[in-house]
Formats: sequence, C-alpha cells, structure tokens
Amino acid sequence: MNGYCTATYRCYDDKADFHKKALSIAVGLTVGSWTDLPEARKAEMEKHLGRVVSVEVHETDRPGERYADIRIAYPDINFSRDIPALLVTIFGKLSMDGRIKLTDIDVSGDFLTAFPGPKFGLEGVRELLGVHDRPLLMSIFKSVIGHDLDGLQEQFYKQALGGVDLIKDDEILFENPLTPLEKRVETCMEAARRASAQTGQKLLYAVNLTGPASKLAAQARKAISAGANALLLNVLAYGYDTLHELSSDPEVNIPIAAHPALAGALYPSPHYGIAAPVLLGKLMRLAGADLVLFPSPYGSVVMPKEENMAVKEALLHPLSTLRTSFPVPSAGIHPGLVPLILRDFGSDVVVNAGGGIHGHPLGTAAGGEAFRQAIAAALKGVPLAEAAGEPGHEPLRAAIDAWGVKEA
Amino acid sequence: MNGYCTATYRCYDDKADFHKKALSIAVGLTVGSWTDLPEARKAEMEKHLGRVVSVEVHETDRPGERYADIRIAYPDINFSRDIPALLVTIFGKLSMDGRIKLTDIDVSGDFLTAFPGPKFGLEGVRELLGVHDRPLLMSIFKSVIGHDLDGLQEQFYKQALGGVDLIKDDEILFENPLTPLEKRVETCMEAARRASAQTGQKLLYAVNLTGPASKLAAQARKAISAGANALLLNVLAYGYDTLHELSSDPEVNIPIAAHPALAGALYPSPHYGIAAPVLLGKLMRLAGADLVLFPSPYGSVVMPKEENMAVKEALLHPLSTLRTSFPVPSAGIHPGLVPLILRDFGSDVVVNAGGGIHGHPLGTAAGGEAFRQAIAAALKGVPLAEAAGEPGHEPLRAAIDAWGVKEA
Repeated sequence: MNGYCTATYRCYDDKADFHKKALSIAVGLTVGSWTDLPEARKAEMEKHLGRVVSVEVHETDRPGERYADIRIAYPDINFSRDIPALLVTIFGKLSMDGRIKLTDIDVSGDFLTAFPGPKFGLEGVRELLGVHDRPLLMSIFKSVIGHDLDGLQEQFYKQALGGVDLIKDDEILFENPLTPLEKRVETCMEAARRASAQTGQKLLYAVNLTGPASKLAAQARKAISAGANALLLNVLAYGYDTLHELSSDPEVNIPIAAHPALAGALYPSPHYGIAAPVLLGKLMRLAGADLVLFPSPYGSVVMPKEENMAVKEALLHPLSTLRTSFPVPSAGIHPGLVPLILRDFGSDVVVNAGGGIHGHPLGTAAGGEAFRQAIAAALKGVPLAEAAGEPGHEPLRAAIDAWGVKEA
Repeated sequence: MNGYCTATYRCYDDKADFHKKALSIAVGLTVGSWTDLPEARKAEMEKHLGRVVSVEVHETDRPGERYADIRIAYPDINFSRDIPALLVTIFGKLSMDGRIKLTDIDVSGDFLTAFPGPKFGLEGVRELLGVHDRPLLMSIFKSVIGHDLDGLQEQFYKQALGGVDLIKDDEILFENPLTPLEKRVETCMEAARRASAQTGQKLLYAVNLTGPASKLAAQARKAISAGANALLLNVLAYGYDTLHELSSDPEVNIPIAAHPALAGALYPSPHYGIAAPVLLGKLMRLAGADLVLFPSPYGSVVMPKEENMAVKEALLHPLSTLRTSFPVPSAGIHPGLVPLILRDFGSDVVVNAGGGIHGHPLGTAAGGEAFRQAIAAALKGVPLAEAAGEPGHEPLRAAIDAWGVKEA
C-alpha cells in the first residue's frame, strides 16, 4: 500500500477474536480511538488511521491451539523516517501484548527514500576485492583477548596466507591496551600487505567498532585514517539507527559488516520477538550493512533452513534502488559443508569459518587453502572426495579426513 | 567476585552435560581455548579467563525436561566499561546457542564506576515535585497522532487539573509538523502553568525524544531550552548506551523516563531473551533512567507478579552510590487497583494511567481526582468502597462504579 508501512504478526491465542484484535491494533497504535469520533473528525483523521490488510487464522496440531497471521498497514505520516520510530510504532507496546511475534515488515517507497542502504553492498565488496566469479571466503580470529599486537599479526598473516578474502575481528574484542584500534589496524593491514605479496590477492580486514555510541563515527574515522578497509559492528547492541547513521556518513567510505550478537535473544522463540528475516535480513540491509553475518543452518549455532533462506532472500531480493547485502552464514562451517552452502546460497555468499580454518590439521594457512579448494571444486560440480585426491589438494584432503563431507 | 561481572543463564537442554557447557561458556567467551595452552601462557592468560561460579541442574514437570541455572564470571579486563561491550561479551554469540535466557547480571564495583546512574532518581524526582509522602500519579496522553497544538494543550490541561504529578507523551508521538518538539514543549508547559495555578502543585511533562540517535542530545537541549522539565526515551529502540550517554550529559539536567517499548520482544519467553528484571530493571537503572515504565501485573498488558517484584527490586535495592529509579508499573491501571499497587510497591511508586484517567465517566479532570482520592484512602488504610462514600469523593465513586475495586 502506497504511503503505508506494513507489519505482519503471528499471534497465538486460543480464544481471541483475531479480527477484533487486528482492528484494535490498527486503531490503537495509530489514532487511538475511532468509533467515538465525530464524522467530521473522522474525515480529518482518516489519513492517520491504521488499516487491517489481512487476518489468516490457523489451527495447530495441538488441540485448541490457534494462531493468526495479521497484517496491519501503518500510515507513513504517523512516524519519522527512522528505524526506531518504525519499530516503536509497529511493535513497541504491542510486543508486550501476549504471545505475538513480528514476522515481517514491508516499508513504503516513501519511507525507503530516507535510507541510502549499503554503500558498497554485494557488488561493491566484490569490486573492492576484484573477485566476481566465486563465493568469498572470510575467516575469524580465534583467540584475541589477552594477545598483543605481535600475536594478532601472526594470526592474521597465517589466516591471510591461505587465500581468504576477508578477515574479521572477534566481536568480543573491545578497545583495550594490548591491541588498541589504530595500532591493531596498522598491524593487521601490514600483515595483509605481506600476505597479499605472497598470494597476489586483495584482503579486507573488518575491525570491530566499539565503545560509546556517540563516539563510533569518530572511531570509524580513526580506523580509516590508520588504514582500515572494513568495519565490524555489533548492530543490535547499539540499535539499527547507529548503523544507519554510520553507513550514511560520507566519511565512512569502507564496507560495514553487521554482526548478529544478541540476535538469539530476539528471533528463536515461536511466540515472541522478531523473526530472523526481519531482524538480520530486512532491517540490517535497510540500515546499510554491506555484509550480514547470521547463524547458518549447518553448523554449531543453528537456524532452521527455511528461516535461513528467508534471511538470504531479504538481503538479496530487488528492493527499489537499495544495494544488496552480502549474506554470511556463520558458525560451525568446515570445508566439507561448502557444497551444501553453494547449493543453498549460490555463488553470492561469503563462506565464513573460524575453527574450520584455525583447527585445520596442517595449520591455519592450510585451513584457508582447504576452503578455497572446496569452493573451486563445488563450483565445478566436482565431488569434494574426488577433488581431495587431486595433486596439491592435501589441505582439502586433510580437512575432509578431519571433519567429513556433506555433499549437496 | 571482585574484578568480574557475573551473568546468570537459564539453559534448557534434555541431554547436555551442563557442567561441561558452563566450562565451554567460561572459556569460549573469554580466552577462546585453555587446555591446549602451554603452562607459561596459562599464567599470563589466567586473568582473562572466565570462571564458572555455579551450575544448578533442575528437572521440570515435563518428563525428561531439564534446565540449569549457570553463573559465569567474566573478567572486567576483557571488555570496555559500556553496556554494549558487557552484553556482547556475556550474551552476544551465546544468545544464539540453543535454548538459553539471560536471567541476571551482577556488575563489578569497578565496572559500576563508569556509570553515574540516574541523575535525579526517585528522591530527585520527589524533590523536583516537592512530594515526599505519597505515591506519584502519572497520566498518559490518550490520542495524539493527528492532533494539533491546541488539541494537545486542551488534553494536557484537563489531565493536569485532576492533580497528576507527571504527564508523559505517547511513545508513538514522533517529530511531526502538527506538534513539533519545541512548540509542543512550550504549549504543554504553558498548560502546566495554568493548571498549577489552579491545583497549586508542580508538574513534570516528559516529552518524547525521537529521531536519529546522534541527534538526541541536541534534541534534548532544544527541548530544555523550550522549557521541558522531563524527557521520555524509547530506550530499547536506541540501545542502552544512548540512554547512558544522555543521562551522563551535564546539559541534560532534567529527569529521563525510560519507556519499555519493544521489551516484549525480549523478556516473555521462558527459553530465550533477557529477563525483565535485567532488561527493565538493572540495565535501565545502570544506564541512568530516573523513572522506568514496565508492564504491571494488574492490567491489560501483563507481567507475572514475581517478575514484576524483581523489576522493582532491581530499581530500588541499594547498589553502591547509584541512585534508585522510580518504578512505574503501567497499562490497564484504574483507581480500583490502587490498594493493590500500594500493597506490592509501597509508597515509592508512580501510579500511571491512560484510559483510567481519560475514560472516567465524569471526564479527564475527575479521572485524575479519582486516582488521588484512591491514593489518599489507600495510604490511610481506608477501603476504597468506604472512601468513595465520603463528601467530595464523587470522582472515586464514579470510577469504582465503572471499573470496580480490587482491595489488597
């Protein structure tokens, strides 16, 4: 609906009249009251009134349990064009009103105009790296707390040597005396240059932006001055608006990777919270994340497959002029999962690994190589077990021996 | 534990070895790995290592279902002294690791030193109003969207006439052309002065602070220049750090009321999220909220009684030099509930009503009067039914006829 942002809720209630409930949401969260208004006032207020778009009632397998998918359209005129205003309008008070989960948001074209979206996006990140024909490979620092600059540099260099495209800070590495932001950027970018001289490929290092919310932009500028070429942000700890402002800042001219820290407090319950495709998909992209990490359906920290595909869809589907965000399904990834990842995500995905690189039997560099070999094989449709037998593919072979293969 | 912030989790798993899980949290979210470290390195790293404080395993009524309350202490040295860093450390990745809920946080004395806490707090708000001997009364605008300044002023004046102490904006009132922030403040404060001349009592008006996160401090200053004497903030839409920074800002020299919008996405599930006493209690106070609104156990938007009392406790218990935050149990409150509220909260509570004031059969002003009469009666231990019969108590009588009484 033009001029309206639409929210979809899944609402569990064994007794409620869902149609009545939908109407009370549409009125209660907009004009407050409607039926008591004089007719003349109704004419004036109509443009502020929420609309019930649809109410679908379902029975579940449990006797007597029912839920409804309710869609409500909220007039743009009621709220400012920022994510806090949108969320407070559609799910502020309502989130506390029984078993109700926010399952979808469709913002209006007008609302969208306030959001430049990802500054680089999927294509922009590919441009920076000069890689267009394959999934990217990201690796995560293993242990960082209590390590000094030399330790970090060594770890960085080993990861980079294996041919990874991006390396991200651990999200729990905050400003600290051992590896302060600027020094860390200088040290790691130096390691990146040394590794690039060896591998002949470019590398992005996403440094973790932390500290007081109002200082993040200044910290980002510091990091950029020190040579940073990407940022990592724990978006949910700061709110989407902080990401929106950072990504809209002309001086923040490097990609931003959104970390899903705290997301598990919001998306997994069937009855409460905000569904992952909204939380980690639509809103992250709207707020301007160039890359979005989220729990994969394969590994140690799991999200159901269907939900995962909906997150991907939210990051990649055409939406006005908004760039797409690179999907980064994460956690518990090893080379043997690469064929599955490519089957589900296609080539426009970042394969992201921590333990699957650092824990490689032949060492960290071999860990990266094993992933690159797995990616190359999967792209050609060669089964990994077969590819592992090819000359020079010892890293892939050792990875498969250690962790196995799940062919698509 | 000195030098450690402690987190408590409730963790549901029918098969897990909870002691092993606790250890993996303590190590995994701090130093990353431990048993493989050389002894010399262990000595250096020990100060960064998380500690398992306790693991209590419980069986539930459902056959085979088990959960554990796990307490982990995280060394302060690992994270910066801000709430995003604390939350990302203790519940960033972990929130996505199965059925786990963050049920408590105890921050260290050192961590606390970075938090001035509420600038006014309960006592400060009482000082500003000159009211020390009774619960306060807050009223909420009814319909605000689509109304102009005259409409707002009229509504404000009527609410104020009934003897309320605080009036808060609707949390869904954002910056808009009909009632922009500064004009709204001027208009409502003018109505407050007119009403005060009638009632002889002071009044705080909490104006809703909205818009881009980085502009909130400037908006607050604008509101203060225009005469605002209190602020309302949708804290969870912006993140705790935004409240922390606002409340620490010397120029923001008026009380801040924290609205719980979006909290229902986080606290109600037994298996996921962040428990209300942490979400709306400890963290709101730590971040500096002078008043905290939360769903009451009585009304339309319900929170279980026990949880409600734990929120109150978190706002009021002695904690270093931190001021206490005024508890404001909200939603569905009418005068007949006042004895219950006072039984549960004592006198240090803000009785907060919307429909219970505006919907009064004798009008908005009588709505406020009915509450004040109910509060006076409850303080004296006079049953409301009896008090309603006293001369001049028509407002209370009409309220009881409309909504009934629940004596404590």
